[in-house]
Amino acid sequence: MRAAIPFVSQENPEKERVWLETLSKYLPDEAILPLDKLSEGERQLADVAIVANPDPQALKQLPNLVWVHSVWAGVERLVNDLSEQSFSIVRLVDPQLQEAMAEAVQAWSLYLHRDMFEYAKLQRQATWQPLPYVPASARTIGVLGLGELGRASAERLLATGFNVIGWSRNEKIIDQVTTYTGDEGLETVLKSSDIVVCLLPLTKDTRGLLGFEALAMMQPGACIINFARGDVIDEEALQYALNTGQLKHAVLDVFAIEPLPKSHPFWTHPNITVLPHISAQTNIDSACQIVAQNIRNYRLLNLLPDVVDTKRGY
Amino acid sequence: MRAAIPFVSQENPEKERVWLETLSKYLPDEAILPLDKLSEGERQLADVAIVANPDPQALKQLPNLVWVHSVWAGVERLVNDLSEQSFSIVRLVDPQLQEAMAEAVQAWSLYLHRDMFEYAKLQRQATWQPLPYVPASARTIGVLGLGELGRASAERLLATGFNVIGWSRNEKIIDQVTTYTGDEGLETVLKSSDIVVCLLPLTKDTRGLLGFEALAMMQPGACIINFARGDVIDEEALQYALNTGQLKHAVLDVFAIEPLPKSHPFWTHPNITVLPHISAQTNIDSACQIVAQNIRNYRLLNLLPDVVDTKRGY
Repeated sequence: MRAAIPFVSQENPEKERVWLETLSKYLPDEAILPLDKLSEGERQLADVAIVANPDPQALKQLPNLVWVHSVWAGVERLVNDLSEQSFSIVRLVDPQLQEAMAEAVQAWSLYLHRDMFEYAKLQRQATWQPLPYVPASARTIGVLGLGELGRASAERLLATGFNVIGWSRNEKIIDQVTTYTGDEGLETVLKSSDIVVCLLPLTKDTRGLLGFEALAMMQPGACIINFARGDVIDEEALQYALNTGQLKHAVLDVFAIEPLPKSHPFWTHPNITVLPHISAQTNIDSACQIVAQNIRNYRLLNLLPDVVDTKRGY
Repeated sequence: MRAAIPFVSQENPEKERVWLETLSKYLPDEAILPLDKLSEGERQLADVAIVANPDPQALKQLPNLVWVHSVWAGVERLVNDLSEQSFSIVRLVDPQLQEAMAEAVQAWSLYLHRDMFEYAKLQRQATWQPLPYVPASARTIGVLGLGELGRASAERLLATGFNVIGWSRNEKIIDQVTTYTGDEGLETVLKSSDIVVCLLPLTKDTRGLLGFEALAMMQPGACIINFARGDVIDEEALQYALNTGQLKHAVLDVFAIEPLPKSHPFWTHPNITVLPHISAQTNIDSACQIVAQNIRNYRLLNLLPDVVDTKRGY
C-alpha cells in the first residue's frame, strides 16, 4: 500500500473540506488526509504532502518528505521559515491563474488609465467634469516581475494598446517589451512609467524594494498597482508618496497584514483602492487537476515538476 | 474666390476658438468663420458648413447649403429638427473615436466583470470580503448597435475573453459574434446577456427602446452600460429595475439632460456609475484632419463622403 498524502493548510474547515474533496476526486487512488488524521506511522511514511499556506512548523511532523506541492503560487512563508528543510517545494503554476492575473492587471490598468477613481470622486460631489482623454498609446506601463504572471500581464497590456516595459531579476525577452534588470534598470522603469505594476515574488531582495527612494524616482502623478505581496512595498513610504502628491493613486490587493485590519488608514485613504486579495483567486478545481497530474507523474515516473530555488526564493 | 465655410456650434468660446484654429491649420486655403462673422452675401454663397452640435435653426440662415459636416458622430438633433432640410449631413467617422469607444466598452465591462463597484462599497465599509471569481469565458456581453463603434467594441470584448453577441437594425456579420435583428432578436440578446452594452444611435425607433418591458427581459442581476444616447433608455424604467434588484448595476455616460442636473437621483444611486459623457471624447486634432480631407475631396473632385440616411436617422 502506498503512503497516505497529508494535506496541510490553515484554511477554514469549509474550504479545507472542498480542497480535500476535489483533490480526492482527481486522485481517486490516493488517500489524502488532513495532517491530524494521520497516524504516527503514516507521518513517518509520507514522502509527498499537499499544502495550502501551511504553518511551516507543522511540516516538521513529516520527517521523510521528498517534496511538498503548494496549491498557492506564492511560497515565501515556506521558504523563509524552513531554510534548512530537506524537501523540495513545488508551487502552483496554473494557466487559469495566469489568465485571471493578466485580466486583473488589464482591468485595473484601464481603471487608472480611464480615471475611474477620479470620476467616482466627482460623482460623490455630483460634479459633471470631463477629464482630458489620453490615448493608451501615450501611456507607458512598467511591469516589475516577468515570471509567468508578469509575462501574461505584459502581453495583455500590449494588446490593450499600452506601451509596456518590464523589469526582472534575470533577463527576460518578451516581444515588443523593452526589459531591464539590475538597480539601474529598475530606476529606468520607475522613471519611465505612468503606471507601475508590481508582480514580484517576495524574497529577501524584494522585501521593501519599493520604499522611499524607489517611489521618489517615479514620475510625479504616476500610479502603482500591487498584486504581488504587501511587503514588497513599504507602506509608510507609499502613504508619504500619495500624501505629497508624488503618486496619484495606488491599487492594492495585498498588504503586510491580511485581512487588512479595520483600523488601517488605507481603507479610508482617498487615493488608495483597497482590494481583498482577489486579483487572481485560486480556482480550486483547476488547481487540483494540476496537482493531481504532478503527483501521478511522481508516482508513476518518479518525476518532479520544477521546484522552487530556495536560495532566490521562488 | 471660393465661398467661406461657416462653422456653426454651441461650444463655449474657448473650445470654438480651438476648433477654428485647428480646422484652419488643416485647411489653409479655406476661410472658416463663425456663422455670425459671415456677411449676408457669404451666407448666400455657402455650399458647405462645418457643425458641432449646432442649433438646427441657425442653419436656416444658409439657404444654399449642399452639405454639412458634423464633427460629432451623433447627429440626431440635426436630423430630427430639420426633417425637411435640403442639404446632406455627414457625420464624423474617426478611427481614433472608435478606438476610444471600444476601449471604454472594454474598460467598463471589466469594471462590472471584476466587481469594482462592489469592492468600492466594501472598502467604504472597511470590509475584507473576497467575492467569487467568474472567468470572462463564462460571461456573455450583448452589444446593441453594430455600426463602426459597436463592431470595434465587440472585437475588443472578444479579445478580452468574453462571449459576445450583438443586435442591430440591419443584419451584420462579425466573426465569432452571433448577431440578431428584429424584436425577437432583441429579446434573445437581452435574455442571454450578463452585461448589455448600448451603442445604438438615437432615432424614432430607438427612443425609449430600453423601457420597462425590455429591462424586465434581462437576466436577474445583469448589468447595463449606456454609451450611446440617454434617451435610448427610459430613466424611470431603469431606476425601477435597479431598485427592485432586477438589474445589479448601470454604467451611464449619457443622459436625457446633459450635464446631468445636480439634483438628479442618479448621482447618489448606489447602483449607478455616473460618467460625464467621456466614453469617446472627440479628438479635435484627428477630427479636423478627417473633416479637412473630406472637404478637399469635395472641392477638388466634387466627392461627398457617406451621408446620413435621414429616414433611418444615422
